[in-house]
Amino acid sequence: MKQFFHEVVLKTKGTGLYDFTDNTKSFVHKNKLLNGFLNINILHTSASLIIQENADPDVLHDLNNFFKKLVPMDNKLYKHITEGKDDMPAHIKSALTNSNLTLSVKEGKLILGTWQGLYLFEHRIENQTRIISHHFIG
Amino acid sequence: MKQFFHEVVLKTKGTGLYDFTDNTKSFVHKNKLLNGFLNINILHTSASLIIQENADPDVLHDLNNFFKKLVPMDNKLYKHITEGKDDMPAHIKSALTNSNLTLSVKEGKLILGTWQGLYLFEHRIENQTRIISHHFIG
Amino acid sequence: MKQFFHEVVLKTKGTGLYDFTDNTKSFVHKNKLLNGFLNINILHTSASLIIQENADPDVLHDLNNFFKKLVPMDNKLYKHITEGKDDMPAHIKSALTNSNLTLSVKEGKLILGTWQGLYLFEHRIENQTRIISHHFIG
Repeated sequence: MKQFFHEVVLKTKGTGLYDFTDNTKSFVHKNKLLNGFLNINILHTSASLIIQENADPDVLHDLNNFFKKLVPMDNKLYKHITEGKDDMPAHIKSALTNSNLTLSVKEGKLILGTWQGLYLFEHRIENQTRIISHHFIG
Repeated sequence: MKQFFHEVVLKTKGTGLYDFTDNTKSFVHKNKLLNGFLNINILHTSASLIIQENADPDVLHDLNNFFKKLVPMDNKLYKHITEGKDDMPAHIKSALTNSNLTLSVKEGKLILGTWQGLYLFEHRIENQTRIISHHFIG
Repeated sequence: MKQFFHEVVLKTKGTGLYDFTDNTKSFVHKNKLLNGFLNINILHTSASLIIQENADPDVLHDLNNFFKKLVPMDNKLYKHITEGKDDMPAHIKSALTNSNLTLSVKEGKLILGTWQGLYLFEHRIENQTRIISHHFIG
């Protein structure tokens, strides 16, 4: 059994979805990972991880827009407001999506559907540097 | 360390929850899997996976109904509308639930609570064929 | 390859977030787990698991409050009402969050961000005893 660790670092500029599928695939290819599990965790509580459609950018826009309406940036709704009007909504959006994904690698390839991409979902409005932990066992 | 791969294929007929617990259990039993992790991924972005109560069918009805109201099929709300009024809501419902579950197998049995079942949550209204990847390491 | 199983049992008193990070860390330390995956599952469908900020208790209050408003305890909205006005909302809140988390252990430590804690999210109003399965492979 082999184990590999890796960190993907992404710089984000405002709320929305950031595709990191290629970073993950290149981790798999460079280390010649054949068969096993790839555990992916985001080390923050105001950004999250989702698997989504990689074809039409409008999907990403609509997703971000839906969450913006569902979880308004309105200080009157929350007690936790000292870190900015976007901070508490960011924690809620994170709870509504995922901090963790576990993918399968088979014969050197990530098991993903044709239209599936891996996204960091940024919920803060200011620029951020985000760390996504990758850990392979196989 | 042994690895086993398997695909569960489900045909769905409209939005709602489809129980595939027996398919997963039979994969575990047929291959005599003893102790390990079972990673389950749905290879689509308009259907998702959840663990839910397996006793009262009304729970499944109420769940589907809640998501239907929370994410309306209304073209005026979205930019991504070319694939049908149910497509963008399907992506959002998928983001609100899960594409991935990792279960534990102990002494040949899935670790699940008495009332827990594994469900595919279909978000499209037309008939679909869905692939759920299963990958065991133990 | 080694495998370890453990159950964390938590008693809850009403809806809200219960921190079990220390229980999980002590499982890792006591068994001297070095590198591997830790799969965590809650064996119930009316409570769930999330990773959230561990610094300001107001975040936990606001999270619980948001979900309370999003999924009202109102029998008129649901068919499944025999187990109490909080039961169907509990299943929905569970579907909106997670039943399963997979964490990574590296050099004897859980890979978690500085501000990340592990929480049981209780959705029932009466006192409950909850089982959270832990399973390590490494």
